[in-house]
Amino acid sequence: MSLTLYWSRGSCALASHLLLEQVGAPYEAVRVDLAAGMQRSPEYLKVNPKGRVPALVTEHGILTETPAILQYVCQRFPAAGMAPLDDPWALAQFNAFNSYLCSTVHVAHAHRLRGTRWADDPVAIEAMKKKVPQSVGDAFALIERELFAGPWVLGARKSACDFYLFTMSGWMESDGVDPKQFPRVLEHRDRLAADLVVAKVLAIENAKA
Amino acid sequence: MSLTLYWSRGSCALASHLLLEQVGAPYEAVRVDLAAGMQRSPEYLKVNPKGRVPALVTEHGILTETPAILQYVCQRFPAAGMAPLDDPWALAQFNAFNSYLCSTVHVAHAHRLRGTRWADDPVAIEAMKKKVPQSVGDAFALIERELFAGPWVLGARKSACDFYLFTMSGWMESDGVDPKQFPRVLEHRDRLAADLVVAKVLAIENAKA
Repeated sequence: MSLTLYWSRGSCALASHLLLEQVGAPYEAVRVDLAAGMQRSPEYLKVNPKGRVPALVTEHGILTETPAILQYVCQRFPAAGMAPLDDPWALAQFNAFNSYLCSTVHVAHAHRLRGTRWADDPVAIEAMKKKVPQSVGDAFALIERELFAGPWVLGARKSACDFYLFTMSGWMESDGVDPKQFPRVLEHRDRLAADLVVAKVLAIENAKA
Repeated sequence: MSLTLYWSRGSCALASHLLLEQVGAPYEAVRVDLAAGMQRSPEYLKVNPKGRVPALVTEHGILTETPAILQYVCQRFPAAGMAPLDDPWALAQFNAFNSYLCSTVHVAHAHRLRGTRWADDPVAIEAMKKKVPQSVGDAFALIERELFAGPWVLGARKSACDFYLFTMSGWMESDGVDPKQFPRVLEHRDRLAADLVVAKVLAIENAKA
């Protein structure tokens, strides 16, 4: 059965979109227009009660949360070799990296435009925006120094972690973070931007609707 | 080789602690006193450059991030049956649940005492604290209504997800959330609190230092 990925422009769903394309999965990509509030429509809430993207619809049901989607797609298409499925320790590092992006990097980033999740006072919303360059920058400093093995996230072999990092490193400039501080992450981003699979998916996501 | 878990009182490391005890792993549990700032000591930063708990030291190296630790411990001790390792779809649901706790529930909770991660203005810190009952309450409403299969998180079989949910549902009162709103989550919490493995670990974590 074909899979259906619900995605939105500029969101973390890009990581799942890139992975589905990379592994050669049969899939359909359906755009959710967040600016138009489609994620809160009754139709979409039936797909994903969380009202967020990504959501992956399969013959078993719906799957959400990027780290879970990434491992699942890798397990479903093992021949693509996008996760170290046969080595529990390497797979644990794969999941630790993705969990850090999801729970620390993405969360720091979200305080720029989604501050109302955590406070109502407009003064607080502004204070949150102000700290994003520091909190996101600190997270990328840790990635650059400690978490990125190189040349790929996990070392010699490309994996789904690379698509997830590429997704988030693409947000640095809009978060007020100078990517030149992080030469290894920046080189990784440039290298992936030149990849044919990545270029194809970006062209689809950035096409005029 | 014996594993070493670094934990701190009242933290999410409880989930990993409970799982290690449940699976019968050979392990040592080392307390990190967050109030005394031990997590930022040069010694601890050598163990975990993130300066957080939990951290699991293994013969391969160090592993952080609760969702990654939980799956890894389940894979290392498969006979304990604490994750649906042979069913990629069920394992994806296991990881989606844990990722939601890590990136949404824990993050909402952290705005009560760790607001300085995301803003410096004291007015903002106060505004964040004020919204915690709502943001944490909304997350538990989604768990109660959508994510909790019952009688265990994933359905008929207990898994590591149950220890992670137990850890976070234990924070509801201090977060200003009335657990009586969520009878299924509350019954689950009461049931686990009466479990011998859980009682043993809680006695260790709550013992006078």
